[in-house]
Amino acid sequence: MAEGAADQAREDDRQAHARLPYPYLLFLGDATEPAFAKTAFGLRDWIPERCVGEWACAEATVSTGLPRLGPAAARARGARGLVIGVANVGGVIGERWVPLLVEALETGLDIVSGLHARLVDVPPLAAAAARCGRRLIDVRIPPPRIPIATGAKRPGKRLLTVGTDCALGKKYSALAITRAFAARGRAVDFRATGQTGILIAGGGMPMDAVVADFEAGAAEVLSPAAAPDHWDVIEGQGSLSHPAYAGVALGLLHGSQPDVFVVCHLPGRERVLGYPDYPLPSVAETIDLNLRLGRRTNPAIRCGGICLNTSQLEAQAAQELLARESGRLGLPVADPMRPGTEFERLIDSCLA
Amino acid sequence: MAEGAADQAREDDRQAHARLPYPYLLFLGDATEPAFAKTAFGLRDWIPERCVGEWACAEATVSTGLPRLGPAAARARGARGLVIGVANVGGVIGERWVPLLVEALETGLDIVSGLHARLVDVPPLAAAAARCGRRLIDVRIPPPRIPIATGAKRPGKRLLTVGTDCALGKKYSALAITRAFAARGRAVDFRATGQTGILIAGGGMPMDAVVADFEAGAAEVLSPAAAPDHWDVIEGQGSLSHPAYAGVALGLLHGSQPDVFVVCHLPGRERVLGYPDYPLPSVAETIDLNLRLGRRTNPAIRCGGICLNTSQLEAQAAQELLARESGRLGLPVADPMRPGTEFERLIDSCLA
Repeated sequence: MAEGAADQAREDDRQAHARLPYPYLLFLGDATEPAFAKTAFGLRDWIPERCVGEWACAEATVSTGLPRLGPAAARARGARGLVIGVANVGGVIGERWVPLLVEALETGLDIVSGLHARLVDVPPLAAAAARCGRRLIDVRIPPPRIPIATGAKRPGKRLLTVGTDCALGKKYSALAITRAFAARGRAVDFRATGQTGILIAGGGMPMDAVVADFEAGAAEVLSPAAAPDHWDVIEGQGSLSHPAYAGVALGLLHGSQPDVFVVCHLPGRERVLGYPDYPLPSVAETIDLNLRLGRRTNPAIRCGGICLNTSQLEAQAAQELLARESGRLGLPVADPMRPGTEFERLIDSCLA
Repeated sequence: MAEGAADQAREDDRQAHARLPYPYLLFLGDATEPAFAKTAFGLRDWIPERCVGEWACAEATVSTGLPRLGPAAARARGARGLVIGVANVGGVIGERWVPLLVEALETGLDIVSGLHARLVDVPPLAAAAARCGRRLIDVRIPPPRIPIATGAKRPGKRLLTVGTDCALGKKYSALAITRAFAARGRAVDFRATGQTGILIAGGGMPMDAVVADFEAGAAEVLSPAAAPDHWDVIEGQGSLSHPAYAGVALGLLHGSQPDVFVVCHLPGRERVLGYPDYPLPSVAETIDLNLRLGRRTNPAIRCGGICLNTSQLEAQAAQELLARESGRLGLPVADPMRPGTEFERLIDSCLA
C-alpha cells in the first residue's frame, strides 16, 4: 500500500510538474515583512531561469530585485503563470490581492498558489478563470491514499534539515546540501515538503496540508525505499518547539527516519516568528530534542552539523561567527549560501 | 478568530448531537481483536441507555455482551441508527461490512461512523441511503475555519490524559475524572477528541482528522477560554512515542496547554499496538517527555498521577500493583474504573 501510494504520489508530481505554467511572474501581495515572501525569494534564487519579474499591491515594501512588471509586460516577456509568492499566517488569500489576480487572469496568465486556501474557493477568481479560460493551480493539495506510517526501516540514506523556527533556511540548506552531494558524485534527490520547494523541484509532499493522522505516513511516501547508497535530502518543516507547528515537525521527523539531520538557525532571531511571547530554543536544545525524538524511528540518528543563515552579516563577521559556533558546539557550522571550507566540512560530516 | 471558530464548532456540535439517531445498534464488523472495537465498548460503557444491542459479520469474535440483534430486531427494540463500533488501521470501511450495512439501511436504520473513510464515498452505501431515504453520518469531519494556534495562555484550568500507546484508557480515564470532578462540585467539561468520545459527549474535535498545520489550533478551539476555576478534561490521542501518531499527540499537548496531565497505561502491554518492532515507552519516560514538550506552552505543567488499566487483573492483584507503582513513581496511581481510595487520591492530586 505504501509503495502504491508512493507510485501514485510520484505520478501526480510528474503530472503537476508537466503542467506548471512557467516562466513565472512573482506576486508579492501586500507584503511588508520579507520572511513572509519566502516563496518568491526561493524561486528567484533556485530557478531564476523561470522567473521574469515581480508584481505587488501598492502597499507592498518587499522586493525580490527582479524587474517590476505588470501582467501585460510580463506576458510580453514570455510569462505564462503568476505565482503567489507570499504567505501569511493561516495561508489565506488577501482581499486586496484579488483585483490584481483577476487582472492577471484577464491578461492571460494562469495562477499558481501554495497557500492553504484554495484559489478555486475565491468566487471572483473562479469566475475570472472560467471567463478567461485560465487555470487556477493549487500545489498544496496532498495526493490521495496516503497510508498510516508503518515505522518500518527502509533502505537508502536520509538527511533532514530541521530548524529552531520557521522561515530561516531549512529549504535553502537542503537544496545546497543536495547540490553538494551531487557534486561529490552521490546519488541524491531533494525531497520538497512545502509549496516553494515543490515549485522548485516540480514535485514533493505538502506536509503541512496532510491530515494529522497520516503525517508520518506522508513522510514515508515522500522518501521511499531506495538503493542503500542513495541519499534523500528532505526539506524540514516548522520546528519541534513551535507552538503551532511542532506536530508537523515531529511527524516529518518520525516518518523520514533520518540517518543525519542538520540544524538550521538564523543568528539574532530571539523570538519565534510571529510569536513574540515565545523565545527561540537554542541550537543545542534543538539538537538534543531532535536526537531524543528522532531515535524512536531511527536509533542511529545523528547531527551532521549546523547551517547558520548569515545573510544579515558581512563576510568577515560571518566567518568569525561560524568558527566560534563550531568551536562551541563541537560540530561543523557553515552557511550553505557561502561556499567554502566550512560547508565542505559540513558535507564531509554528513557523508561520514 | 479563535473565538468565532470555537462558537462555530460548538454550534456544529450542538446540531450534530441534536440529529444523532440514537438509540443505537452497535456494529462490530469482522473484528477479532477487542482493541479495535473500542468505539462499541465505549458506547456500551458510558451511554448504555442509548445502546439496544450488537451485530457483526459471521467472522467476528469480539462481543460487547449486549444482545445480538439483526437490524430488524434492533429496530423493533427502538434502534434508530447503526454505529460502526470498530476501527482498523487506516480507518477504512471493510468490504465485508458493506452488504450488512446496506441491509441496515434497508431495514430503516441510519448509519453513524467515526472512521477516516467517509460513508458517502462507498457507492453501494450512498446508493442504498438514497434509495431508502436514510442518513449516512460521519462524525469525524472537523469543523470549518480552524485557526492556526496562537500559543497564548487562556483562562480556565485544563487536564489532558496522555498515554504510553493508543487504545489503553485515555478516554475512559478522562470520562471518569470528569465525573469525579463534578462529584466534588467542580465546574467541568469533558472534551472529546476522537470519534467514540464525540459520540458519547455529543460533540468535540476529531483531532486526528484535522490538517496537520491546524492541529494545535484545533486543540485551542476545543478547549476555549473559560472561568478561572472551570476545568476542561481533555481526552488524549495517540502517544508522543507512537511511530505514526506522535504528531497528533504533540499538537494536542501544545494546543491544550494542560495544567495537569495524567498518564494512562496498560500493564503488560510491552509493544506498541500493531507495531511489534516498537517497545512501549515506560511510564516514567512518558511523564518526562510530556513535561519537557508540554512546558513549551504551559511552563507550569505537572503530572497529576497515573491511570492503570487493570481490567485484565483480579481485584487483589490490581490493588497490589497500584500500590507498588505508586511507591515506585512517587505519584498517585489508580484504575479509574475501580472507584476507591487510590482514585480519590489521584483526584486530590489533580485538583491540588
